[in-house]
Amino acid sequence: MNCGVTTFGFEIISTDPQTHARRGRMRTAHGDVDTPAFMPVGSRAAIKGCLPELVRRTGTQMILSNTYHLLLRPGVEVVAAVGGLHRFMGWDGPILTDSGGFQVYSLGDLVRLDDKGVWFRSHIDGQPVELTPERVIEVQRVLGSDIGMVLDHVVPLPAEIAQLAEATRRTIAWAKRSVEATAPGQIVFGIIQGGLDKQLREQCLRELTAMDFPGYALGGLSVGETPEEMYQVVEAFGPRMPPEKPRYLMGVGRPQDILRAIAAGIDLFDCVIPTRNGRNATAFTWAGKLRLRNAKYRCDPRPIEEGCFCPACADGRFSRAYLRHLFLVGELLGPVLVSLHNVYYYQKLMAECRRAIDRGVFREFAQDAIARLERQIQEQPETGGPSQG
Amino acid sequence: MNCGVTTFGFEIISTDPQTHARRGRMRTAHGDVDTPAFMPVGSRAAIKGCLPELVRRTGTQMILSNTYHLLLRPGVEVVAAVGGLHRFMGWDGPILTDSGGFQVYSLGDLVRLDDKGVWFRSHIDGQPVELTPERVIEVQRVLGSDIGMVLDHVVPLPAEIAQLAEATRRTIAWAKRSVEATAPGQIVFGIIQGGLDKQLREQCLRELTAMDFPGYALGGLSVGETPEEMYQVVEAFGPRMPPEKPRYLMGVGRPQDILRAIAAGIDLFDCVIPTRNGRNATAFTWAGKLRLRNAKYRCDPRPIEEGCFCPACADGRFSRAYLRHLFLVGELLGPVLVSLHNVYYYQKLMAECRRAIDRGVFREFAQDAIARLERQIQEQPETGGPSQG
Repeated sequence: MNCGVTTFGFEIISTDPQTHARRGRMRTAHGDVDTPAFMPVGSRAAIKGCLPELVRRTGTQMILSNTYHLLLRPGVEVVAAVGGLHRFMGWDGPILTDSGGFQVYSLGDLVRLDDKGVWFRSHIDGQPVELTPERVIEVQRVLGSDIGMVLDHVVPLPAEIAQLAEATRRTIAWAKRSVEATAPGQIVFGIIQGGLDKQLREQCLRELTAMDFPGYALGGLSVGETPEEMYQVVEAFGPRMPPEKPRYLMGVGRPQDILRAIAAGIDLFDCVIPTRNGRNATAFTWAGKLRLRNAKYRCDPRPIEEGCFCPACADGRFSRAYLRHLFLVGELLGPVLVSLHNVYYYQKLMAECRRAIDRGVFREFAQDAIARLERQIQEQPETGGPSQG
Repeated sequence: MNCGVTTFGFEIISTDPQTHARRGRMRTAHGDVDTPAFMPVGSRAAIKGCLPELVRRTGTQMILSNTYHLLLRPGVEVVAAVGGLHRFMGWDGPILTDSGGFQVYSLGDLVRLDDKGVWFRSHIDGQPVELTPERVIEVQRVLGSDIGMVLDHVVPLPAEIAQLAEATRRTIAWAKRSVEATAPGQIVFGIIQGGLDKQLREQCLRELTAMDFPGYALGGLSVGETPEEMYQVVEAFGPRMPPEKPRYLMGVGRPQDILRAIAAGIDLFDCVIPTRNGRNATAFTWAGKLRLRNAKYRCDPRPIEEGCFCPACADGRFSRAYLRHLFLVGELLGPVLVSLHNVYYYQKLMAECRRAIDRGVFREFAQDAIARLERQIQEQPETGGPSQG
């Protein structure tokens, strides 16, 4: 738990001359994070099926967990009794906790929401749960995450302007209350809402910037808009978020989305795509996705990707034929191995992005990589778009 | 695959002065195995959910896989295409493959069985499958397991004497055909059947001993008899199996069963109990079993067992509270961690047995351990008995 002494910091090490991309380092109480950084998602205090030491070997420095999920199960008092979230889940690196705003959005009509906060019934036991901006800050303090997030009001897109305006006004008011509820030394990021409306985004950015959060997120994206619409918001507002603070794009996304967002100056990402795809037998490679249930891999002795050093591919240990077998018979090891491979793929992408920024060639790097990824989509239809959680 | 050169051997390093227990070392093409040894079960070419490197860290030297399962899925030609079973599953240590006799027994009335062999329809796709003694030997040669097993005729207990006699006669005839089908350098163990009938067991032991297999198993136990009945067979026939060859008790069992069998001169064991219990949130400890879903562990910060060095307990990394949480929310990591702990517990038990034999105090060690285990059963009812598979 934070005890009043701030160990948080952020420095920019290099900037790309032709884009807004920045290469930085974020300092937290549990270690440094090289940015741009990708956080795999362990909503319920576990990256599904993967021991923390294996997650570490994917190159992951920081992970995301979720206030909403942990509040319902096991309950914050359980995590506290064991000594906080790091101890609880056996992850000694940095942890960011999402606030629960996105999960509240996912619940839809089951939620009652007003200026005071959010009320809903637990889907586990039907017990009423109350989330207020203050309660969310307090819970994250008890969890002991290195970075917490404010409670925000997320609106599914497309949305009426009046609804967006109301949600933005509420997000700003909640942000202010969150600042007041934050303990000395506790690190909480603000979240900029406003849907696809530039004026509302502008207003939210301006008001939250004045509150001087130690970092800022773009939220309310990947909630029904097209990738192009998402890019417009990211490209308009990424470069205008406070430059000396970390910038976090929540719940995004596909590799091409991340590349474009880095070019717009974003530093931090989380997404369930690598692990969810891994559980569904879809593996990322530089040559495109492999659907490992496909009959063509039946006798394929190659690893998912030649030359990959992830726990599944290193030394050519596990063949496509073996992984296909594991999925067809329903063996747990299949989802574990392909999740680890996919997270490794994402982390390798991030490492290459950082190197390209250092070398001042990020624009060319990103253009080439996006062109290759888009070509792959032409050749192999996607199984799913970006998703948050 | 074996290529005509036998690298198999077995030496006895020490014997216990007061029991039939022996401490030995089995040499295989993929490394040595200290006996008495326990093999965790990976029927479908995976120890459920566990990377081979983690299985290795439990102290496991040798694992068991299953001809029957692999024949149905992915098919022996797939394993062969990838370079054999070791390469396929990423396990570079010794592997023993069971023959499929026990699985045929499990299928019950779905099987047609005569002197030629066994016919059944695949439960996967309804295709007819034929297992003959010769085919089973050939399949294991192609899989490349370090030790294969003959096809035997397993009878559920209790059984009529006429049925047991018929099955024993058939097992002997099949064993003879198996010897003829075995390639130079291929290692295949014989299986002694006969149910609870001492004369039939005696006859089977005598006839198979004459065939000079490189190792022998007691089969047809843990198929419906009481522990006491099983002990009677093991204690009568363990000491009379060829002393210079490894002796294997198939599919047994609970820690107390293993202790009693070691005292009867058994060297090799396999059982699904540690992994199956692990998947059901039951953890073995020296103080008794923990049912990790129990509410009393809700805030328990202790590891499963203090001082245990398994991947789940080492450094007190994962608390009972965390494991309980994983099981309650259905996170895959729970079954993985408790399976690893339980296999580690079994391997530690085996290591302590070997040490007690070396020191000549196995009788006292086993008596104490069995008394403690039986007392635990009095205090905490069992969830299940020994099971094979």
